[in-house]
Amino acid sequence: VGSLSVRGLNGIPEVRAGDDLAALILAALDGASPTAGQVLAIAHTAVSKAEGAVVALAEVTPGQRARELAADAPAGAPNRDPRAVQVVLDQSAEVLRAERGVLICRTRQGFVCANAGVDLSNAAAPDTAILLPRDPDASARRIRARLRELSSRRAVGDGPVAPARSRPGREGAVAPAVMITDSFGRAWRHGQSDVAIGLAGMQPLDDWRGRTDASGLELRATWIAVADAAAAAADLARSKDSREPAVMIDGLERFVTAEDGPGAAALVRPLEEDLFR
Amino acid sequence: VGSLSVRGLNGIPEVRAGDDLAALILAALDGASPTAGQVLAIAHTAVSKAEGAVVALAEVTPGQRARELAADAPAGAPNRDPRAVQVVLDQSAEVLRAERGVLICRTRQGFVCANAGVDLSNAAAPDTAILLPRDPDASARRIRARLRELSSRRAVGDGPVAPARSRPGREGAVAPAVMITDSFGRAWRHGQSDVAIGLAGMQPLDDWRGRTDASGLELRATWIAVADAAAAAADLARSKDSREPAVMIDGLERFVTAEDGPGAAALVRPLEEDLFR
Repeated sequence: VGSLSVRGLNGIPEVRAGDDLAALILAALDGASPTAGQVLAIAHTAVSKAEGAVVALAEVTPGQRARELAADAPAGAPNRDPRAVQVVLDQSAEVLRAERGVLICRTRQGFVCANAGVDLSNAAAPDTAILLPRDPDASARRIRARLRELSSRRAVGDGPVAPARSRPGREGAVAPAVMITDSFGRAWRHGQSDVAIGLAGMQPLDDWRGRTDASGLELRATWIAVADAAAAAADLARSKDSREPAVMIDGLERFVTAEDGPGAAALVRPLEEDLFR
Repeated sequence: VGSLSVRGLNGIPEVRAGDDLAALILAALDGASPTAGQVLAIAHTAVSKAEGAVVALAEVTPGQRARELAADAPAGAPNRDPRAVQVVLDQSAEVLRAERGVLICRTRQGFVCANAGVDLSNAAAPDTAILLPRDPDASARRIRARLRELSSRRAVGDGPVAPARSRPGREGAVAPAVMITDSFGRAWRHGQSDVAIGLAGMQPLDDWRGRTDASGLELRATWIAVADAAAAAADLARSKDSREPAVMIDGLERFVTAEDGPGAAALVRPLEEDLFR
């Protein structure tokens, strides 16, 4: 507690469908194994590309509603393309606001964000839409398990003569927490900041509500979205003009858990508590 | 670019009205002068206490509306006290939502947040409400100027024999960017994360909208609230159970400016662009 170190990982190549993202990240760590207390933040676009959650606009036929919404968007906006709007609608469980070409949607995963998280920039190719991973918590768990598996193998390979069988198995091997991030806007404020949309091995919220100090005073009436804060911190260490999907964070050991835990789903406010529907 | 280091400053005493916060922070730096590329994040409660932006609930007479709203709050909630609700109403330009004892307000400064930013925990004394600083950007500029002044004096005192007159003046002396933070909730998500409510010497937003790479592809369709992200990062380095109002951030030199700049006011979405009014 008291200090944080956040470092973007260089040298991860453009990710393609079917790539082993965990292996690419370990290679970028350049021989240094991740430790159990670290948090690895990965931009969702890299995960989506690896999972093939990408749509070619040429294969999309926009419906009537998509054409109408696209006509409302200002010239030059990505949502001016009715095919892009159709992809957004296909990813949405509900459209909360549609004004001036801005679509605020509740995604199939339950997140409320602009354009249902569909990314038309940063694509590997033009006229391509990158979707959110279908189940980002499952993606985070999968990447964490794969990091554990590969680190375990590496440890066996690098280690002394003890047979692999006597080593800690996949469960025992070290793996950092894994977080998948996206840039969300914030109501009533300008600009976007990153949040956690997928999470494995990290406590998403730190609950200080009602805790009191020795004199009985409430310490802090807050319930802190530590995973969202870590996602925002990670984004500050990422070069925007290079391709740096992965960021390693040290100093959050107190929030890292051996179990994968409740995931980023725990950060989503249930519909019935929503004040701004 | 590529790495970030965030460090909570130990040893700042409980702040009282009239305290010289810049001097307390320099003392906590333990002789190490801040450098021009650093960002110093300060929890608003410390700034408000130093400025005397504190109200004793014993001196508040709640009106009819405050009594009605307090009656709607659940037992045990801070807003169950009609005097606390009256303080919140006094700090609000507009109450956007009032449900189940939760008041979402637009403050006199223009921020939209729960309870108009009034803090009933973390107080120096019970039955005390800490308000937001009256003009947090002005507070940030004042603290930055004072840090510059004190660092300049310190440099003169420690330096060799050159007369003070030939040294850089207050304007030339080194000062970090100064950010004042508060914990805000986020619509549709659980938990709070810190945002910048006051800012001097740092670019609040990083605009990548429409920038293209060599192949003409848009790099990233984002407009990044870097000051909010830095505020969130700072909060992760702060021990919640100790009193650590100040956090120093290295690695954001690219956003630090000699001029004080537009401040955190630039992060507030104007009323007419508000989709969730």
